[in-house]
Amino acid sequence: MTYDLLIHGGTIVTVDKDQRVIANGLVGVKDGRLACVRPHLASAPLPDAAETIDARGGLILPGLVNTHTHLPMTLFRGLADDLPLMTWLNEHIFPAEGAHINPETVKLGAQLACAEMLLSGTTCVCDGYFHEDDIAAAVAETGMRAVLAQGVIDFPAPGVPDPAQNVATARDFTARWRDRHPLITPSIFCHSPYTCSAATLEKAKQTARDAGVLFQIHAAETEFEKNQTLKEHGATPIGYLHRLGLLDEATLLVHAVWLTEQDIDLIAAAKSPVSHNPQSNMKLGAGIAPVPALLQAGITVSLGTDGCASNNNLDLFEEMDMAAKLHKIATEDPTVLDAETTLGLATRNGARALGLHQTTGSLAEGKAADLIIVSTRPAHMRPLYHPASHLVYTANGADVSDVVVAGKVVVRNRELLTLDLESLLQRATAMGKTIA
Amino acid sequence: MTYDLLIHGGTIVTVDKDQRVIANGLVGVKDGRLACVRPHLASAPLPDAAETIDARGGLILPGLVNTHTHLPMTLFRGLADDLPLMTWLNEHIFPAEGAHINPETVKLGAQLACAEMLLSGTTCVCDGYFHEDDIAAAVAETGMRAVLAQGVIDFPAPGVPDPAQNVATARDFTARWRDRHPLITPSIFCHSPYTCSAATLEKAKQTARDAGVLFQIHAAETEFEKNQTLKEHGATPIGYLHRLGLLDEATLLVHAVWLTEQDIDLIAAAKSPVSHNPQSNMKLGAGIAPVPALLQAGITVSLGTDGCASNNNLDLFEEMDMAAKLHKIATEDPTVLDAETTLGLATRNGARALGLHQTTGSLAEGKAADLIIVSTRPAHMRPLYHPASHLVYTANGADVSDVVVAGKVVVRNRELLTLDLESLLQRATAMGKTIA
Repeated sequence: MTYDLLIHGGTIVTVDKDQRVIANGLVGVKDGRLACVRPHLASAPLPDAAETIDARGGLILPGLVNTHTHLPMTLFRGLADDLPLMTWLNEHIFPAEGAHINPETVKLGAQLACAEMLLSGTTCVCDGYFHEDDIAAAVAETGMRAVLAQGVIDFPAPGVPDPAQNVATARDFTARWRDRHPLITPSIFCHSPYTCSAATLEKAKQTARDAGVLFQIHAAETEFEKNQTLKEHGATPIGYLHRLGLLDEATLLVHAVWLTEQDIDLIAAAKSPVSHNPQSNMKLGAGIAPVPALLQAGITVSLGTDGCASNNNLDLFEEMDMAAKLHKIATEDPTVLDAETTLGLATRNGARALGLHQTTGSLAEGKAADLIIVSTRPAHMRPLYHPASHLVYTANGADVSDVVVAGKVVVRNRELLTLDLESLLQRATAMGKTIA
Repeated sequence: MTYDLLIHGGTIVTVDKDQRVIANGLVGVKDGRLACVRPHLASAPLPDAAETIDARGGLILPGLVNTHTHLPMTLFRGLADDLPLMTWLNEHIFPAEGAHINPETVKLGAQLACAEMLLSGTTCVCDGYFHEDDIAAAVAETGMRAVLAQGVIDFPAPGVPDPAQNVATARDFTARWRDRHPLITPSIFCHSPYTCSAATLEKAKQTARDAGVLFQIHAAETEFEKNQTLKEHGATPIGYLHRLGLLDEATLLVHAVWLTEQDIDLIAAAKSPVSHNPQSNMKLGAGIAPVPALLQAGITVSLGTDGCASNNNLDLFEEMDMAAKLHKIATEDPTVLDAETTLGLATRNGARALGLHQTTGSLAEGKAADLIIVSTRPAHMRPLYHPASHLVYTANGADVSDVVVAGKVVVRNRELLTLDLESLLQRATAMGKTIA
């Protein structure tokens, strides 16, 4: 066979269920899929290929999966920090969104986000925002794999001035993007149990079920939310969602910080995946999700960066490092979230959380060729004993040299090939001046 | 005046006591010192200079100060992770040190560490280890500013087989390195209150006092240590050091995690500086130092990475990000350790902790020209509203483009000029194979 793309010479970190690591690896890509993932004798000739990447000195691993963000908020990166949550939201973020979010700016912000993510090794992202049609069109140009959700909230929102139309707008979005683009999967995102009525939550989830798409929701992020839900509904946020019949395998629970043991049992029984956003939770002082307990209960925990305004970047390598260290200190147990487990959250579990585990999240023959190469040449990567350790504790996004999505090389030698990056960055900088 | 070096066009983040930020800045260097730090009209001609750096699109700030590490442990980066503290130390780190630490390997590890630190924007480091003469010789070649301490411990140690000679060895080291090299300041490092007897602690501190050098000690790192000190000495680790008369302005307390309110009062009264090592404390599950309370008490808190084996890199940008987020979540208060405060820990406070505040730690005329340029060109740095926010929450070491120490350009366009990096990295990789 003549491969479309051949990557050779690096160490393959498959992140498959057996955590196979293959020295002197060979990855062959055909028709966007992994046709071979195997060792290669240095003395043997390389198979024929239309394009070849020499990955010597590199780690070849699945592209990272970011299961929660709000792409256009790159435009608000660092606009307001170090503030109480409600001051930050009500006096800075919501007003900035009201003044500046429109179809043009969401495109710009989404492409800036995709550029940053691809350059730092994320190949698949899950977004929830507004003007999602425009976001989807913008993301499609970047070559990134994405699950994109139109937001639903019971307030006037960007592009949805009449909240009565919120679920219909989301339904229409999912209909328009069904099978429209090979890399884009539509979804529905309800903002939270405290900003959507029970009727809205039920209707949105039913619409997602009817369309066969992922339903996403911020849930149990803050103690304030937990107390308010207890007071208004006599249940924890998770208990309330359970009572409404919203928990199932296709409901992605974002944050999941303030959980009781019973909540964990409910999530486990429903097989709902969780998007853990440690840096956002830390920066906003929201709380620490009980990730070791969630994993112990068999729940699919994945990693998200959240929007740039509460992080303030989209580097999943930093998110892995922070996640592992946060839970070690929270439990005072250095053995929890070991490097291999943490790498799994950002890859295999991310794909599973989004329902894309047949497609991406590990390097296995037959899956899509979504992969990255991490250089081990920099000083901070020497020496190297265990690849997973370096990927979690040592590397950051700047160590990513090459990125492939569905077999297409989108980053080569740290250069983004799918967008005019310089023009994009100039427009982002100009928009920042307008916003400031 | 003709400057030796002129840096122009960037935004100067002085990190001085007024937190001045100077757009279109001009930095002039003469005889290794900052001769001018001021704004420059784009229309005006540039002053004459032997060497000029165009810093447009960059942030010009003081070089970062890492107040605690063990340089040669770069060689053990990622050798053992995710283990209980005592297993990690007794079964992995101590045996690896016993088998592999010698004058040759400490040089290699120290140069690897300096290469990594300079390339990621750290211009001044404080080390405590063994074979410190060899480390000092190796560090001197790198062009880095350093406070280097010979270790004292009441066990046989690398290069000090007879513990009875531990303080004398440290004394001789400080004598040999007094005024020997303009960038190197000698110091004495006692390992801890639980590995050194009261007599050793007192003698080592007296020796440091006599030599007029900084005394460093790991103190109150783990709950185990606190309980053991309470049991053996009837005092907390800090109370015990106070009783021995060891606390003063020239005693750097490393970790300072397990503190009572009275301990904080003792540290504040003695004006002892603290080296906070959040990533090491998190990764080892040691505990969370009460940094907001220490700052509130007027204590000089600085940042350290600790050795590479418990971090696993030496990137102070990541350390700032982690520190700010750790204390927000620990206190559930997003306003603590704001970006400007956190940037101060890694610069101004670092210099003060080491007694080098007349020399380095901020950009002010008359101080040494220790500065770095951080690029704001990458996607993850756009847009930019507040420089301190980007430096703490967004940037990492790979964004550093240029590094100047004492007026000498040691990194230019991300290239290290003082060492043969490729040869160094090859030797580090080869040593890793031996160790593995």
